Amino acid sequence: MVMGITEILDGYDTDNLSITTVCSHSSMQIFDGARKEDMGSIGIAIREPPRFYEAFPLGVPDEFYTVDDWKNVNAHAPALQEKNAVVVPSGSFVEYMGADNFKQLDLPTYGNRDVLEWESDRQKEREWLMSAGLAMPRVIDDPHDIEKPVIVKYHGAKGGKGFFIAKDYQDFEKKIDRDKPFIMQEFLVGTRYYIHYFYSPLSTDGYRVRDGSLQVLGVDRRDETNIDEAHRLGSITELEDMGIKPTFVVTGNIPIVLRESLLKKVFEMGEKVIERSYELFGGLYGPFCLETVVTEELDFKVFEISARIVAGTNIYIDGSPYADLVQPGLSTGQRIAQEIKMAVEQDRLDDIIT
Amino acid sequence: MVMGITEILDGYDTDNLSITTVCSHSSMQIFDGARKEDMGSIGIAIREPPRFYEAFPLGVPDEFYTVDDWKNVNAHAPALQEKNAVVVPSGSFVEYMGADNFKQLDLPTYGNRDVLEWESDRQKEREWLMSAGLAMPRVIDDPHDIEKPVIVKYHGAKGGKGFFIAKDYQDFEKKIDRDKPFIMQEFLVGTRYYIHYFYSPLSTDGYRVRDGSLQVLGVDRRDETNIDEAHRLGSITELEDMGIKPTFVVTGNIPIVLRESLLKKVFEMGEKVIERSYELFGGLYGPFCLETVVTEELDFKVFEISARIVAGTNIYIDGSPYADLVQPGLSTGQRIAQEIKMAVEQDRLDDIIT
Amino acid sequence: MVMGITEILDGYDTDNLSITTVCSHSSMQIFDGARKEDMGSIGIAIREPPRFYEAFPLGVPDEFYTVDDWKNVNAHAPALQEKNAVVVPSGSFVEYMGADNFKQLDLPTYGNRDVLEWESDRQKEREWLMSAGLAMPRVIDDPHDIEKPVIVKYHGAKGGKGFFIAKDYQDFEKKIDRDKPFIMQEFLVGTRYYIHYFYSPLSTDGYRVRDGSLQVLGVDRRDETNIDEAHRLGSITELEDMGIKPTFVVTGNIPIVLRESLLKKVFEMGEKVIERSYELFGGLYGPFCLETVVTEELDFKVFEISARIVAGTNIYIDGSPYADLVQPGLSTGQRIAQEIKMAVEQDRLDDIIT
Repeated sequence: MVMGITEILDGYDTDNLSITTVCSHSSMQIFDGARKEDMGSIGIAIREPPRFYEAFPLGVPDEFYTVDDWKNVNAHAPALQEKNAVVVPSGSFVEYMGADNFKQLDLPTYGNRDVLEWESDRQKEREWLMSAGLAMPRVIDDPHDIEKPVIVKYHGAKGGKGFFIAKDYQDFEKKIDRDKPFIMQEFLVGTRYYIHYFYSPLSTDGYRVRDGSLQVLGVDRRDETNIDEAHRLGSITELEDMGIKPTFVVTGNIPIVLRESLLKKVFEMGEKVIERSYELFGGLYGPFCLETVVTEELDFKVFEISARIVAGTNIYIDGSPYADLVQPGLSTGQRIAQEIKMAVEQDRLDDIIT
Repeated sequence: MVMGITEILDGYDTDNLSITTVCSHSSMQIFDGARKEDMGSIGIAIREPPRFYEAFPLGVPDEFYTVDDWKNVNAHAPALQEKNAVVVPSGSFVEYMGADNFKQLDLPTYGNRDVLEWESDRQKEREWLMSAGLAMPRVIDDPHDIEKPVIVKYHGAKGGKGFFIAKDYQDFEKKIDRDKPFIMQEFLVGTRYYIHYFYSPLSTDGYRVRDGSLQVLGVDRRDETNIDEAHRLGSITELEDMGIKPTFVVTGNIPIVLRESLLKKVFEMGEKVIERSYELFGGLYGPFCLETVVTEELDFKVFEISARIVAGTNIYIDGSPYADLVQPGLSTGQRIAQEIKMAVEQDRLDDIIT
Repeated sequence: MVMGITEILDGYDTDNLSITTVCSHSSMQIFDGARKEDMGSIGIAIREPPRFYEAFPLGVPDEFYTVDDWKNVNAHAPALQEKNAVVVPSGSFVEYMGADNFKQLDLPTYGNRDVLEWESDRQKEREWLMSAGLAMPRVIDDPHDIEKPVIVKYHGAKGGKGFFIAKDYQDFEKKIDRDKPFIMQEFLVGTRYYIHYFYSPLSTDGYRVRDGSLQVLGVDRRDETNIDEAHRLGSITELEDMGIKPTFVVTGNIPIVLRESLLKKVFEMGEKVIERSYELFGGLYGPFCLETVVTEELDFKVFEISARIVAGTNIYIDGSPYADLVQPGLSTGQRIAQEIKMAVEQDRLDDIIT
């Protein structure tokens, strides 16, 4: 835990916590979820709140809090502490602030901040997931060894920019920018499922993992430009011949359900990731997402993990085929608010806040 | 406004309006929406109502009104006026009646009929959207100038029939039917989003545009045969070699959500289109749809506008990830009924009826 | 009807029936549906219930009943009769038990078991659907006659494994395993819609077919690995050149709505299939699914029928754009429970149970 967070929490009026996040990514869902659980909410924005919030009254936080610069949020920590702010981080929150700033933020933060170190470094992410027993795409170290198509990912590439496909060594040489570090994995051909998990160390109902319980609240597929619609014009190879490069930039999400019999493996994967996270760095809790491909043998290959709420949950603001079997209409945003409330009731905020 | 509509409206019992549309397209959603707002409804059908309505009790209008010929609806205007009919036009309504007949229909009609002139002519549509500041696919005038793939659209082509892709000049010459007028645009490769807007000139809440407010109630992707599943057999080029031509006929719709940070641009686009519509022809109000492609730079390119309810809203008859942040369970059909009710309450039917 | 089922039913306490299915496929939806209608439920599992049920409290049956071997379920029939078990079969139920065992199961079973004979044999399935007047893909008997791409399906191939595409005779010869019987159909290029019908011989409301009524409760698209995402890497031909074979293994389902004007044909197809089923084998009732492709002429081609609940209905556990026009929030699982209740009230269980 960041130094002093316990002390900050001790000073909080825990009956009046404010769920706080940046106005982006899944923020309207998070604020809507807070409202459904009668909790307060604060939306952090640069200079002024995005105008589009005005169109979505149920997605508006109780209060907007504006800052001048994302790098500078920590200067506002004392003022936000006054408002009993508990940060719910999203991918945007971390990206905008920068991981280092985020890790040092003097505000109680839902989830384990130490996970960042294992998630943002592709090498450590792989170490975590592989040692947990998950199957991942094979890594190719030497471009001469490319036998089947590979996807090459430059370090730090965001939202799918900076990826490319190489069919063979020649293709690789033609496309690679040697000045940038990269990793290279086999390109998995199969159906993609992004699984929205939620792990509660507090709840003793349900699918038990360690002392808590594991849920699946939804599944989506990311929709990426231009790769997901490129086929309307031609094959990837044909497009490259026309001078159009495939890109993997996420622009949206599509709802999807898995074959019911795959749920066994889905929960086993979730369980392994959590168990291993406690051994490695004190645990993964709250929402997270395994990004998977299902092969023709009905096996999951995991190509990435997101250790917090993913934007694909936005589809399910009024429930999903999975969440509706937990509580009709439940969203991940609302589940987060429930968890924080439960921690207050059990006097265990320390167990879910860092 | 069509001559005499004000007079017709003056004779109406505005406490007993009947939302009236043709039995097709999005009609069940519109009737369901009327019912949810305790308004009456009339479904116009040829000779007899489609039998499938019997299977959907909540999609049935209060009354079916049968006519012999779509061209002939206006002969029934007096009888429909007796029933306080307010027409809610859909794409099918306009197509079946013909645009000229529709423009002259002696019935109060929700929305601005003058938009038709700017929407049905691809040249004027382009003038409207470009002068509003939207980005559109580049137009290629001379087939010799084809450098990247283009989509060629014959005038008046409906639902995607009569479109073809040309990769270069030779390909164009092979496929073109010189007897038919056409336009030619660059073929945009990117993820497609069909954005369901609703503009109310009456509401003063929310995202303000002019004196009213703008909403987004949903986003879908059109599903087109055979282009959207052609890849299961091969690339477009390979299919053409097998004698299978790509077609773009809409057969359905798929739900989708946009990356939250794109909403800023979404609202800005909607605002610009509305502002410009007032300058050009007295305004666009009610539901409309921008048909877009998102590029890898996360920019929207707009390839078309539909100036009324689109069938993609049918997905969201019980709410959408966007509508649920306005009012849980809200559909575009219900939103239309709310708008008409609000106009009655404010005694401003004239402002939304032509 | 299986011998003795009437007698078994006579011994049942029909006020306390238990909807019984195997813990797989669409079971959580079925149990949730039973609960919504205040009916009991039993989940049959091998040795122990799948753990993942623990995560979905509303998908849990009132009781789990474990057996050692799917082949052996009938030995437990007397015990299950004591619990007033009425079986709701899913594809998994039939597959796990084996069709022959299932046909002989000494438990009252919702739906007509005789349909199995016409559904599991591709020749008889074709005879049924073609003689009902549905359009199906053309069958090619002689591989020398392949002029356009065909899909070759080995007999008994499950969930899309054991299918392959052949572009011409040479391609066919290269891929075929002559030791296995197969059928060969033209490969249809078009958008796929899997239509969730429900036929009630008891209900006299709605879209009348024979003495009952027909509903459509949803539409989905199956998501198949690797065929549905193969285009991200290249065309099918290109993939085959890389040593990656296209496969058709179902891994999930995507929600979709049809163009409203297609509903006319949808209901006509459903009606024809039902009418013909009564002529051939005593009728098809309860949930069923036509698996279709829509061509550019907006015609449906049916490539398969599933004569019971399909997993695609899992998407719609809280309603669909179609079901919501019948009863908001209705699922196929709930509709099944309603039907069984209605049969009890009308004292007509014999008409829907075999």
